[in-house]
Amino acid sequence: MRKTVISTILASAMVLAAGTAYAEKKILLKVPVWFPTSLPALGTSPAWVAKQVNAIGGSIKIKVYEPKKLVPPKEMLEAVSKGQVNAGYTTPGYNTGKLGDKGAIFSAVPFGPDAPEFLAWVYYGNGRKLWQKTYDDAGFNVQSVPCGIIAPETSGWFKKEIKTAADLKGLRMRFFGLGARVMEKLGVSTSQLPGGEIVPALQKGAIDATEFSMPAIDKRLGINKILKYNYYPGWHQPATLFDLIINKDTWNKKMSKGQRTVIELACRAVMTDGLAMGESMQFDTMKANVKAGTVNKYWSPDMLATFEDKWADVVKEAIQKDPGFKVIWDDLQTFRSNYRIWNKWAYLPRPGTRRCRTHEANQPRSC
Amino acid sequence: MRKTVISTILASAMVLAAGTAYAEKKILLKVPVWFPTSLPALGTSPAWVAKQVNAIGGSIKIKVYEPKKLVPPKEMLEAVSKGQVNAGYTTPGYNTGKLGDKGAIFSAVPFGPDAPEFLAWVYYGNGRKLWQKTYDDAGFNVQSVPCGIIAPETSGWFKKEIKTAADLKGLRMRFFGLGARVMEKLGVSTSQLPGGEIVPALQKGAIDATEFSMPAIDKRLGINKILKYNYYPGWHQPATLFDLIINKDTWNKKMSKGQRTVIELACRAVMTDGLAMGESMQFDTMKANVKAGTVNKYWSPDMLATFEDKWADVVKEAIQKDPGFKVIWDDLQTFRSNYRIWNKWAYLPRPGTRRCRTHEANQPRSC
Repeated sequence: MRKTVISTILASAMVLAAGTAYAEKKILLKVPVWFPTSLPALGTSPAWVAKQVNAIGGSIKIKVYEPKKLVPPKEMLEAVSKGQVNAGYTTPGYNTGKLGDKGAIFSAVPFGPDAPEFLAWVYYGNGRKLWQKTYDDAGFNVQSVPCGIIAPETSGWFKKEIKTAADLKGLRMRFFGLGARVMEKLGVSTSQLPGGEIVPALQKGAIDATEFSMPAIDKRLGINKILKYNYYPGWHQPATLFDLIINKDTWNKKMSKGQRTVIELACRAVMTDGLAMGESMQFDTMKANVKAGTVNKYWSPDMLATFEDKWADVVKEAIQKDPGFKVIWDDLQTFRSNYRIWNKWAYLPRPGTRRCRTHEANQPRSC
Repeated sequence: MRKTVISTILASAMVLAAGTAYAEKKILLKVPVWFPTSLPALGTSPAWVAKQVNAIGGSIKIKVYEPKKLVPPKEMLEAVSKGQVNAGYTTPGYNTGKLGDKGAIFSAVPFGPDAPEFLAWVYYGNGRKLWQKTYDDAGFNVQSVPCGIIAPETSGWFKKEIKTAADLKGLRMRFFGLGARVMEKLGVSTSQLPGGEIVPALQKGAIDATEFSMPAIDKRLGINKILKYNYYPGWHQPATLFDLIINKDTWNKKMSKGQRTVIELACRAVMTDGLAMGESMQFDTMKANVKAGTVNKYWSPDMLATFEDKWADVVKEAIQKDPGFKVIWDDLQTFRSNYRIWNKWAYLPRPGTRRCRTHEANQPRSC
């Protein structure tokens, strides 16, 4: 009898566990992040992912660690690969020292895709496969889950108006990713300072100008209080992607299919959330900035043509230096030339623009 | 002793259940859908949501029912509200008979926001709140979770080229939502046939022309085999939203916070997935269509101006008829006029367009 009772109770316990269908081993992803979680989108996105995943109340939890609290951002990729920490939130463009310039393609491409096109290439083109391959080929033992996107950034803050390319020559400027290579071609000396070091560097006179992110983010750093001229459009970063990297042994061996699905879902969800947040919060900042003295400038057609020419040179050199760059670049270009067919037909022109007339069709630059 | 053993086992069982932290009651959402799950984005989106949610292996599951299998699409809203079925996948624009024309604003707005702007208004403006309020005010006992978005649609298929508004007069055309009101102003007699009935109606000569969705979807229906002229851009639906509606008692009383979080996450994730899918799959169809004889046309500036003028008339009338329309419309317009500040500065022009020159700035229509 006693045995029967115990068996029954044990069976009930097993049914209970099976009923919850959540018999996986619990796992905690410790996620050091690249940006303070106070920065909109850049920092709030991984915090949002953690909050949502934890709110499910399932067997996977996430704990976010502010920059430098667990591992310094620059050591994150190595640390995750070696399993010193099981995950991290970053973007490949911050790891070009380890991945090559091609890594930066998965962050942002000058004169490249905006958010809907980028997402299409990543999820329904070869983007995500090539992104993962870039880590694999560089010998890193990480699973990359695309996990954040932001709308265009502004292309920089300057003390003075920039009328011609000559005005850029000799400037020391904080600049990110592949856009920085373009600026270097124009005689700008670039550095990729972390967000928190930008304003101190400007105050000390260690740099003359900077780009960082979207107006609402730049304002948090206080850049607008030091530099008056804010340049648009975001030719250097029409959209910027981020990823959650997870140690591959953790991903493959310590996480169940259900746990991996939760991460994939939360990361795809934060694409929507980060994009929506970024798009919603710039205009108020722009209005406040202008009231406080910021002068917004849209690069002249000549300057945009100059940036685009130099970008073509940068691509040529990157391909010569690294055949792996060419593989990714060619794939993206094929996708883009196809997408252009749709993009040209499906959309109304953006505000402040108009459709080219037939006689302008042979002037690709001005139209 | 026996009691102690049993207590220990019981305690273990409880720890086991608590350890999985998934002690919620299981719930199955039965989701009848508006479109066959074979249709890209429109139909695959709810199927994708179900697949992901089920793959988590948690206490919430979703079963999708093809149109008419559980409840007919047109009865879905009533059925979910009354709890005859606990959920459904739809878009408010299909329920304007019950919600008023204002419902259609949450589906798609002629000359309205594209996907990033729409998502910004929904999640970080007042969009979602007003969307829910529209169901509440109409007396429906449903929780709406925004759960899908698609890129622009084409603005219709015709037998002959449409050169002036006079060519539209007298046509019988399948057309959706608020765009249909615009077409009616131009003498088009519109009907909102379900996808599957469009081609039969064209074959029988019951309608002369149609819009339905994006090229890849229209092709599944075979519209391109009957009508030669495909018109762009998607002025009538620059982006189209969908929602998962859940009986409110189910949402509030039968679902745990964790289960609601899973649904919210999956629905936000499918925004990314549906947009990416839609953006990725049109160009191949467009190329194939052109090879097979389709002629693509972009509406002339005059025709677009005509549509926009008539749309302004439709809005005026809708506001006169229903003060509730005005509340939503005004909120969206305020958001849009703000967003325009950002949109004008942050983005490069789309392909095939160019930025207006200063002397063109006073010609809002042509530039």
